[in-house]
Amino acid sequence: MTFSAEFDVRFGEIDQAGVVYYPRFFHYFHQAFEEWFGRALGVPYPDLVLKERVGYPSVRVETEFLKPLRYGDRIRVDLELLDVGRTSITVGYTIVRLADGEVSARATIKNVAIDDTFKPVPISDAWRARFERFRKS
Amino acid sequence: MTFSAEFDVRFGEIDQAGVVYYPRFFHYFHQAFEEWFGRALGVPYPDLVLKERVGYPSVRVETEFLKPLRYGDRIRVDLELLDVGRTSITVGYTIVRLADGEVSARATIKNVAIDDTFKPVPISDAWRARFERFRKS
Amino acid sequence: MTFSAEFDVRFGEIDQAGVVYYPRFFHYFHQAFEEWFGRALGVPYPDLVLKERVGYPSVRVETEFLKPLRYGDRIRVDLELLDVGRTSITVGYTIVRLADGEVSARATIKNVAIDDTFKPVPISDAWRARFERFRKS
Amino acid sequence: MTFSAEFDVRFGEIDQAGVVYYPRFFHYFHQAFEEWFGRALGVPYPDLVLKERVGYPSVRVETEFLKPLRYGDRIRVDLELLDVGRTSITVGYTIVRLADGEVSARATIKNVAIDDTFKPVPISDAWRARFERFRKS
Repeated sequence: MTFSAEFDVRFGEIDQAGVVYYPRFFHYFHQAFEEWFGRALGVPYPDLVLKERVGYPSVRVETEFLKPLRYGDRIRVDLELLDVGRTSITVGYTIVRLADGEVSARATIKNVAIDDTFKPVPISDAWRARFERFRKS
Repeated sequence: MTFSAEFDVRFGEIDQAGVVYYPRFFHYFHQAFEEWFGRALGVPYPDLVLKERVGYPSVRVETEFLKPLRYGDRIRVDLELLDVGRTSITVGYTIVRLADGEVSARATIKNVAIDDTFKPVPISDAWRARFERFRKS
Repeated sequence: MTFSAEFDVRFGEIDQAGVVYYPRFFHYFHQAFEEWFGRALGVPYPDLVLKERVGYPSVRVETEFLKPLRYGDRIRVDLELLDVGRTSITVGYTIVRLADGEVSARATIKNVAIDDTFKPVPISDAWRARFERFRKS
Repeated sequence: MTFSAEFDVRFGEIDQAGVVYYPRFFHYFHQAFEEWFGRALGVPYPDLVLKERVGYPSVRVETEFLKPLRYGDRIRVDLELLDVGRTSITVGYTIVRLADGEVSARATIKNVAIDDTFKPVPISDAWRARFERFRKS
């Protein structure tokens, strides 16, 4: 299975060069990650954070920027599981410009599961199974 | 007395029109407000929020935008007290472009003092006196 | 007629107080304004800006914040025309928290139509008619 | 030689978890990069972009997040040159929390020099020499 979320590039996300300011790509990745929980994994990320007191901060990020995004572009963020460790998951992201199908950026982001004291917590078998459904085939 | 804080307009603060995206003006106002506490009122805003558990959310904002800001502009935010109520303060802001002295924006922002349950709390006489030193003359 | 746009409050839009950082409300207003053009007025805002070289910067903003927004809230931004002048429009906004129907914020924002040299341009009769369809009844 | 820029973590940069939202780390890196040009390389980045029509978009980013940043933290971003290619530079960044000297994050970011049509442009010998003064020893 694959998971995708779509976003519009907004007026205020453009920078002096007339393209999306690159830190905002990470906001797109994070928003796709948030939507993955609510729309595909069965627990909205706000519930996970606010009720179950578990979060998944990013600890390692590798990104390649291939094509700039411009105002008015609509993008699709494709997300796939690359790995599940004892307390972490590694997720791959691809941002595609919908108008021409070009890949704008790719990223690999590792997130550690933590409780609300920021201590890593083991990923349960139930969660592992949910994540695995999105493993890259 | 007057209080001023200076900021550089950053590459990522520009929007599609080539000028500062207007919501970021409120970030400039807030940053000046934060600095006012630490540099002039005797209690850094992080200490107020994290230790004394008091905050000053904005409840009313009036702003006039006069001249756009561009990448590379350096600005000064002048701040003055307009009013202190039982649980609120009203602060006036002027953003000046340093290169030409032009006023870019003016704002009046009312903030309510709250505790960490978001209940309004009275402003003590000590704080009232601190604020009053910056009243517009 | 009325126009509405819906948004989710995102993880990264929350501030130290655990609620949406107030400058981001203006980003919600602006996003609703952008969607109004594309979904209701017949010209996507990116086309207006990039092809017709016309923009509508905000020159006056009045806002009242009534209820904070928290992570996971879904909001509806209702937009209505308050006035059309020779070169400007004034738009009213109401942000409603969908879960409980509470009004979180109200704003009145005046925008001036400008060309790409930042000179005000008259609003044509055709545009005036499009805007008027959303006048508050 | 080394180059450093210092920043305060702001109220609005904190996320739902009570720490700096990780996309904002890239804004810190970019701000340090901007300051490097103006304060150490002899050409303010706004002049480079607006007058010389040259920019350095990021094309590859690797980051490791080690310690979260909290509201009120003051940080130092240390920057060093890792490599200069024909049309690109690779810069290393370290973010240090000033209060305890802990490293919060490290990044390696590759930037390509482009003209205003987004075509890569060769880095001149004069620029190469300026950059090399900051090479990691």
